[in-house]
Amino acid sequence: MPELRKDPITGRWVIIATDRVRRPSDFSRESVIVEGGRFCPFCPGNEMKTPPEVLAYRHGGGSNTPGWSVRVVPNKFPVLRVEGNLERHGEGMYDKMDGLGAHEVIIETPDHDATLATLSEKHIESLLWAFRDRTLDLKRDIRFKYILFFKNHGEPAGATLEHSHSQLIALPVVPRQVQEEIDGSKRYYDFKERCVYCDMIRQDAESGTRVVLETEHFLALCPYAPRFPFETWIVPRKHFSHFETSDAPTVENLAWVLRTLFRKVDRVLEKPPFNFILHTSPLHEPSMLHYHWHLEIIPKLTKVAGFEWGTGFYLNPTPPEEAAKFLREAGLS
Amino acid sequence: MPELRKDPITGRWVIIATDRVRRPSDFSRESVIVEGGRFCPFCPGNEMKTPPEVLAYRHGGGSNTPGWSVRVVPNKFPVLRVEGNLERHGEGMYDKMDGLGAHEVIIETPDHDATLATLSEKHIESLLWAFRDRTLDLKRDIRFKYILFFKNHGEPAGATLEHSHSQLIALPVVPRQVQEEIDGSKRYYDFKERCVYCDMIRQDAESGTRVVLETEHFLALCPYAPRFPFETWIVPRKHFSHFETSDAPTVENLAWVLRTLFRKVDRVLEKPPFNFILHTSPLHEPSMLHYHWHLEIIPKLTKVAGFEWGTGFYLNPTPPEEAAKFLREAGLS
Repeated sequence: MPELRKDPITGRWVIIATDRVRRPSDFSRESVIVEGGRFCPFCPGNEMKTPPEVLAYRHGGGSNTPGWSVRVVPNKFPVLRVEGNLERHGEGMYDKMDGLGAHEVIIETPDHDATLATLSEKHIESLLWAFRDRTLDLKRDIRFKYILFFKNHGEPAGATLEHSHSQLIALPVVPRQVQEEIDGSKRYYDFKERCVYCDMIRQDAESGTRVVLETEHFLALCPYAPRFPFETWIVPRKHFSHFETSDAPTVENLAWVLRTLFRKVDRVLEKPPFNFILHTSPLHEPSMLHYHWHLEIIPKLTKVAGFEWGTGFYLNPTPPEEAAKFLREAGLS
Repeated sequence: MPELRKDPITGRWVIIATDRVRRPSDFSRESVIVEGGRFCPFCPGNEMKTPPEVLAYRHGGGSNTPGWSVRVVPNKFPVLRVEGNLERHGEGMYDKMDGLGAHEVIIETPDHDATLATLSEKHIESLLWAFRDRTLDLKRDIRFKYILFFKNHGEPAGATLEHSHSQLIALPVVPRQVQEEIDGSKRYYDFKERCVYCDMIRQDAESGTRVVLETEHFLALCPYAPRFPFETWIVPRKHFSHFETSDAPTVENLAWVLRTLFRKVDRVLEKPPFNFILHTSPLHEPSMLHYHWHLEIIPKLTKVAGFEWGTGFYLNPTPPEEAAKFLREAGLS
């Protein structure tokens, strides 16, 4: 019998097709293979092909020359622009505002062929510090209400360049998806006086069936009501609402978790395209007891179709207990 | 300057990339070509390869034999099942219920090669009557709260069989997307004492810039804040909340609009994959002054990526005014 399951945070229902379960080998493969060979604006030596860097961690060289390990530049084709103002305008019954914001690219490595599964822990850690440093810098611009960090890996997941990179978009409004999570967590907190994510960690760590891996600081799990097959969340054990308040041991541990998880994902799903998204709190919101930052990883294995667009329901052919088992048991040589 | 535009119904923001506008020729083509040649369970003569029909419009033959023009059968691999009950169960902090529902396939034509752009108006009209008839029948099962009609055309839009068909899913809950539209329309109505869709028809018909075509009973338009390039809505001029209350002249006119619109879409975007979705009211809801049924058509031209999943914002590289102009001016030979 298929199951309808409810996400305890947003209240979103998903259909888990327990009848016709799709295992890793049942998905059509679109493995992401880095081919190289073409001109790449993110490779060392081509620094002048991007807008000037806003941050770089360097072991040598001057600004906008080789010698960096992580480099952040404004997107050459930004979806939002830093010029403009926050005023809203009417157009008869409609509302609009300037497309104000910042859109930056975090070039994760000078090595064209590296991925999050092959980079060293130390390197991934510095990438995470870059996320933190850009947040603290952009936060000073009070026009920005939220910063989204995300990664599109592979063309089916929306990437246009293959050199490993993530992106940030700073927005003048808190996006509805984020607001829904915060509001949903708040409702749970008002009722239970406990954080819904903390409860999830407790219950899932105890049952173990949806756990992918556990460390001192993190739990990686396939959530109870995932939208997508093999959707995996990395949740810090300690309650913090803002990613940027993480301390060094936490960030160091997160780097290990990310690297291990991506190696497992590559192993089980044969280097799938994926998105990852950092879920954190609005910039100027004080620390919240009800919201808990975390990372969501979505391998791109299925197509979103009319049913999903029409209902906001999701149809997931892989129960999270199955997905977690595959990922948990994947050996890493 | 890019624009942030707000959908007046749901409050959803979209980013219209007015800076780097993508015109029809800028999208990578994935034209849907019907190839035929393989065994097809929807073709006449293969009626025994599907579950027994629940509805067929026939010019001859007995049940489950050739002679039909439109045929409705339960999905052989349903995502929900009619057995089960409405009881909700807890699993610790989580909630679930049986995957109760109905999942049917509307085989739109016996002709394997036909599409909504090539079928006759009369034929499309009978397809719309099938939607109505199935609604009235399924409505008698009081466990169902909502029926979604949708079509996935072409593999990139989620279709698995190429023979032209649409689907219905009857659900035991009102899906959140539908509830959001109804709630949003209600807020507008409470404030203005007018239907937001009626206002939209008035304003857009007057300005004309987003209009694709106008008939006695319908307006086809690219909405002010579309999620996707070339997204087009077909909205009835007369206010009705439920599709199934449509009278014969309305359904007849809708068939003409659909056929004409899909011919335009095929011309401008070279037979793109697409989804269409009927937006109507919950089954047992009485007629509502604030909600207005309509059809939404979404050509599949771009990829939804990390930014959209993380924010619920959409990034649309084609302003609706440009899209409408292309569709409006497309000549039909």
